[in-house]
Amino acid sequence: MPAPVSNRGFGPARHAELALLLEVAGTPKPGNVDRRHDLSDLHFEHFLTGAVGSAEGLRLAEEGASVGEAFETAVEGMGKQGGGNTQFGCLLLLVPLVKAAATGDLSPGGGRTVVEQTTIDDAVSFYRAFEHVDVAVGDPPEDAHELDVRRGSNAESALRERELTLYDVMVLSAERDANAREWTDGFARSFRAAASILDDEGPVTDRVARAFIDLLTEEPDTLVVTNHGEEVARDVMTRAAEVSDRDDAEALADEFVAEGINPGTTADIVCAATFIALEKGVRL
Amino acid sequence: MPAPVSNRGFGPARHAELALLLEVAGTPKPGNVDRRHDLSDLHFEHFLTGAVGSAEGLRLAEEGASVGEAFETAVEGMGKQGGGNTQFGCLLLLVPLVKAAATGDLSPGGGRTVVEQTTIDDAVSFYRAFEHVDVAVGDPPEDAHELDVRRGSNAESALRERELTLYDVMVLSAERDANAREWTDGFARSFRAAASILDDEGPVTDRVARAFIDLLTEEPDTLVVTNHGEEVARDVMTRAAEVSDRDDAEALADEFVAEGINPGTTADIVCAATFIALEKGVRL
Repeated sequence: MPAPVSNRGFGPARHAELALLLEVAGTPKPGNVDRRHDLSDLHFEHFLTGAVGSAEGLRLAEEGASVGEAFETAVEGMGKQGGGNTQFGCLLLLVPLVKAAATGDLSPGGGRTVVEQTTIDDAVSFYRAFEHVDVAVGDPPEDAHELDVRRGSNAESALRERELTLYDVMVLSAERDANAREWTDGFARSFRAAASILDDEGPVTDRVARAFIDLLTEEPDTLVVTNHGEEVARDVMTRAAEVSDRDDAEALADEFVAEGINPGTTADIVCAATFIALEKGVRL
Repeated sequence: MPAPVSNRGFGPARHAELALLLEVAGTPKPGNVDRRHDLSDLHFEHFLTGAVGSAEGLRLAEEGASVGEAFETAVEGMGKQGGGNTQFGCLLLLVPLVKAAATGDLSPGGGRTVVEQTTIDDAVSFYRAFEHVDVAVGDPPEDAHELDVRRGSNAESALRERELTLYDVMVLSAERDANAREWTDGFARSFRAAASILDDEGPVTDRVARAFIDLLTEEPDTLVVTNHGEEVARDVMTRAAEVSDRDDAEALADEFVAEGINPGTTADIVCAATFIALEKGVRL
């Protein structure tokens, strides 16, 4: 066996694709598809296919395409499997982080610069991406029905009239959506979880699973709020905080699957964290 | 949930990368790393990383690079993880099949045309690929020590003196190596296993696992012969033939891991079969 070789020969786009794979492989991530868990209509293999399908859009991001173009391309490729939405939220975080890494500044400030430079065209592409896959989302704010993401490209005129960049759209959603909050907050949770993955030991997929539990205790998961309401999402946090070892996590995984609880937004953030950890040199 | 979308938007290189992922995800594949099994120093995450690392070489194959250049690039990228050799044999089968698919003739005859057109330079690249990763191989034939693959690029002058193409090298190895035999035999087992994957039902990773067991009953696994000898390899065939359901396969997986039996060549062939099945339209 040769001495372990670092994976540092990979560029940011390949690291992002690998992060999608390591994220879904990390087990147990209670309530989510992972290496040892499928959901009834959403299987591990759909995520493998989604990751490979995302690669072209991630490559565009590395090569300097706009956030909107890269994201829409990635989502379109990701959707080329029968499971539905597998990694929309992951890609929303990965695309700006790949761009930041490609310019040599993968940091909260570097991420902030990328997202603050997004344009109205990026916002239009983002809305169009919702036409490629069925994404679970909450209702828009009271005064913003014209900006409901479910309108897809029909929202274009409203976006142009109000001169909203993709960053502006995220600011409007930040209160209700943890991924949007990463955009407006220098990807704070992603960078913090990346540090814990880097500090941790053992197989990376095990570190991913531990980081997931930690993140789950911090904030209500946006997808759980969307599907089950705030109270259930708070209960999920409490139950995650009671996990003290792998057996507890496995038991919680069984419970969440039985209850139909799927903390998907927390998985998105751990995916972004895994990408950052790979870029910062975590060894596989 | 939208209607299932086929994965047909992927080109051959992406399908090959996906085949690497689906192959290692298929479980149980007794004695091999899979979605539910790690070996002591070789983990699932090493295979995920190897698959992503292979992508650049597979893309070269799709774009018309020589077999040797594409293969060596793929192996170099595959080796960028600490587990050692993960998918050398898979890539030896995938690269010519990707080239055949890219020219629109993914068939035994199309595969044969690609391998028969290989050159002495391809042979040199193939030998050089052994310098990128530690591959378990048997001894060369009595009269061919100059052509021992473990000599890496030191074998170049012998290859050029004897004017051996990569196809010629495979002909010399075909008797002892099931992957070389695929090269000289129109990828017969790969195409047959692909047909069984296409005819089968359920998640593709389950079909991969069933095809693996079937292949294992057919012939002694080359890697098992290399590591444990012909008699053990024959015993592996007998034990695989006694598997009648998933529980049997799980039990055999535990036994093989305990005995250090790793039928890796059979996994290579099921990977090639998975690629063919993806190209022929298996849905995910």
